[in-house]
Amino acid sequence: MTAVASINPITGETTAAVAEPTSPDEVARIVARAAATAPLYAALPRNARSAFLRTMADELEAARDDIVALAHRETGIPEVRLNGELTRTCYQARFFADVVDEGGYLEATIDNPGDTPMGPGPDLRRMLVPLGPVAVFGASNFPLAFSVPGGDTVSALAAGNPVVVKAHGSHPALSLLCYDILVTAVQKSGVPSGTVGIVFGTQAGVDLVAHPAIRAVGFTGSLNGGQALMDIITSRDEPIPFYGELSSLNPLVVTDQAAAARADEIAEGLVASVTVSAGQLCTKPGVIFVPRGGHGDALVNRIRHLVQDSPAAVLLNGRIHAAYNELHADLGALPQVTSLAQGLDAPEKGFFVSPRLLEVQAEDLTGAELNECFGPSAVVVRYAPESIDRALELLPSSLTATIHAEDDEAELVEELSGRLLPLVGRLIFNQYPTGVLVSWAQHHGGPWPATNALHTSVGATAVRRFLRPLVWQNAPRHVLPEELRDEAGDIPRRVDGQLRQPASVSV
Amino acid sequence: MTAVASINPITGETTAAVAEPTSPDEVARIVARAAATAPLYAALPRNARSAFLRTMADELEAARDDIVALAHRETGIPEVRLNGELTRTCYQARFFADVVDEGGYLEATIDNPGDTPMGPGPDLRRMLVPLGPVAVFGASNFPLAFSVPGGDTVSALAAGNPVVVKAHGSHPALSLLCYDILVTAVQKSGVPSGTVGIVFGTQAGVDLVAHPAIRAVGFTGSLNGGQALMDIITSRDEPIPFYGELSSLNPLVVTDQAAAARADEIAEGLVASVTVSAGQLCTKPGVIFVPRGGHGDALVNRIRHLVQDSPAAVLLNGRIHAAYNELHADLGALPQVTSLAQGLDAPEKGFFVSPRLLEVQAEDLTGAELNECFGPSAVVVRYAPESIDRALELLPSSLTATIHAEDDEAELVEELSGRLLPLVGRLIFNQYPTGVLVSWAQHHGGPWPATNALHTSVGATAVRRFLRPLVWQNAPRHVLPEELRDEAGDIPRRVDGQLRQPASVSV
Repeated sequence: MTAVASINPITGETTAAVAEPTSPDEVARIVARAAATAPLYAALPRNARSAFLRTMADELEAARDDIVALAHRETGIPEVRLNGELTRTCYQARFFADVVDEGGYLEATIDNPGDTPMGPGPDLRRMLVPLGPVAVFGASNFPLAFSVPGGDTVSALAAGNPVVVKAHGSHPALSLLCYDILVTAVQKSGVPSGTVGIVFGTQAGVDLVAHPAIRAVGFTGSLNGGQALMDIITSRDEPIPFYGELSSLNPLVVTDQAAAARADEIAEGLVASVTVSAGQLCTKPGVIFVPRGGHGDALVNRIRHLVQDSPAAVLLNGRIHAAYNELHADLGALPQVTSLAQGLDAPEKGFFVSPRLLEVQAEDLTGAELNECFGPSAVVVRYAPESIDRALELLPSSLTATIHAEDDEAELVEELSGRLLPLVGRLIFNQYPTGVLVSWAQHHGGPWPATNALHTSVGATAVRRFLRPLVWQNAPRHVLPEELRDEAGDIPRRVDGQLRQPASVSV
Repeated sequence: MTAVASINPITGETTAAVAEPTSPDEVARIVARAAATAPLYAALPRNARSAFLRTMADELEAARDDIVALAHRETGIPEVRLNGELTRTCYQARFFADVVDEGGYLEATIDNPGDTPMGPGPDLRRMLVPLGPVAVFGASNFPLAFSVPGGDTVSALAAGNPVVVKAHGSHPALSLLCYDILVTAVQKSGVPSGTVGIVFGTQAGVDLVAHPAIRAVGFTGSLNGGQALMDIITSRDEPIPFYGELSSLNPLVVTDQAAAARADEIAEGLVASVTVSAGQLCTKPGVIFVPRGGHGDALVNRIRHLVQDSPAAVLLNGRIHAAYNELHADLGALPQVTSLAQGLDAPEKGFFVSPRLLEVQAEDLTGAELNECFGPSAVVVRYAPESIDRALELLPSSLTATIHAEDDEAELVEELSGRLLPLVGRLIFNQYPTGVLVSWAQHHGGPWPATNALHTSVGATAVRRFLRPLVWQNAPRHVLPEELRDEAGDIPRRVDGQLRQPASVSV
């Protein structure tokens, strides 16, 4: 087995190895430690877990300079974005601390005993409880916010589960640094030492998902990678929930009136959204529907010029770099696809590529043009009013879809919404899909192949993935969790069918 | 293909065939109709769906005599229980109507635009939306409450999805009658005609689950049956959620003090719970932990006598009848298992069996004794304080576990709770697991192999299985669902992180 090292995407230089691949025995030892920790960590009062999440955020902030420098070296992502990503990572840890403190996520529900149409009803008290050790697969494209200290990790920890992270092979040194910071937060907070763990290497990831003590898996990555993990889960003695965020085209539709009214604004917003983070965001708009005719031509022209002037972008690793070039070779071989623009030349080092803009007529679409491309490129589909329906039917489901339209196009907007809603988890109007705010109402998920679950990996309800319902029937007070005792009035609860605010909240 | 007929379990007579197995073409046609109906039915206002559910309950009530008589003929279940089951079935349809009207199940959440630590946040409005056509597999043991008009059907309909039921082969005529009543309710309510559908035959069930337009499957049945359906789902192009309620042992633990204090009461409650509905309830206590020593002996003795006096019971069908006899032949061949009691002799006709009570010492348990038995039998495990831990570790997960203990045994109860909670979805104290109340706090589910999901098939939150989150970002008011418009104040919503009651509800 080769030691775990990374390549600097900008220079192409290999860094010193930071870790050996984790052996099967070591994976088993780490998971066993997490399993032994699970009941201890789950039994902590909620405010101990929220304090731990806030300490984690503080410790990450304190190591900002080291984190950003190392992340830049391993991922090639500009430092300004990495600084923003670290801010987001700390924010989401603190946000989940707030979610834990608020307590509504527990769905605490009490039915007092009493007569019912089916006879006397018992005392039933329901709330959500932690699942146990969660495996989290770090993503390449968010080395912080969807990696070791990222959203899956903090939502699983918030829900009361130990986490074992599979470090992404593109940034092992950063993963180790972040893990060490998490361990410091564990120690400073006094939570059990097995609450976080980490493994390195592809086989260790396989061993992790196959381990009987792992109770759920959070994954952000490719459709192929997700399917490989799903196959492992299917062959386990006990299947477990798998939450995969896998693949997304994120169609964006511009109406003729919007093209007429806001060509410059849309072109700029769109090209920024396609090229930000080198086009390696899961919500990048990958296919753009632009009407044929003069307004559409002007918009496409503007987009074309912006792409031509776009600098070469550095991709995260060799695999993504090779896939980008292969996909464009494949697209170039399709007779119906024409190249509209290419950005500035890519340097002959590291993992640089030129931004690309392609075009196809809606009537000529076969579906072969509609593959997710990780990198700074997009396919423009030119449509006539009568050809867009069939084109939209060829779209696979996505995390998002976006409509750019004018205020007086209500009927058209409703029609487009009706077509796009079944395909997505988020429908955006006159904005852009990239930039996923961590908040109470956020949802980051969509029908297969965008994700494989009815759950979100971003936003407050992400904790729901790592919880299961449990009911205590006719239980003596002393065995009930604090949140289900009569006198606990500090969280929202549903009592005898009626939702009740905490006593301290004014409505 | 043979026509679909049923056998009267009491007489052994075959009824006249009521249907042909549904052909692949017909399954495809029925699913296509459901798929075409899905957006129409989902777009109905909530009060149209709740009115439909209430009409369904009214129509079922109106046909009570016919339903009970036919159900009795096809299932052998006593009419008194069938009357109760019909009452429950109507109650749960009306209960889900209340859940729909209340609207909290939508999880409506609004984040208004504003500054955030990550820059300006957009207007985000989230709620749960229907998935599309749901396949429901009727169960043999609840020919009403978990069958054509049962909990999966009404929770999927409540959530806004058309339903296609696979009729259970044990009660095809009853399935058809109930389906016709549902169709009448559809017509009287004016909901779209494709909102309900039905198919007959094993292959039709396979075709149904494999059909690309089916968006989720609800199943109550055997572990083998569930696994076969899960294999089909795994091989679909798009995997869909499968909610299987599969297998459950429902351990019940009696402490020495409880045996001393309440031997008669516990014996009576327990034997009633083991033999009610011929022991064919998924929450039947199948393994009973009784302490060794005088108190335990007295309790076991009392149980033994009650079982000996128990009448023969009629099982639902030939498959269950054969499985009961085979399982007891297997158990009888295990040297560590002794027969404690057998109930009254079974008549040599239909699907009658004698109740059975078996015993094994905790130290001798291998796990081979711990198989779910559908029918009126239970295994008593005699334990010493030092042997119960290892015995509990051999238990597979279940829907429920039950502890019978006395008030002054707080420490022991906490220890037993801690061991049993990870294994179950509902933990019961000094009551019995059978009799699952349909209510807000109810949960009917548990870790694999009890179920394969983090969701319930009974109680208000059962609707969550057939919904997915959707977010509208910066959407014009006219495309928003009514529930997400600013002025909609009649349902609970979370606005800017704060849970808000409907204006009409006083806290």
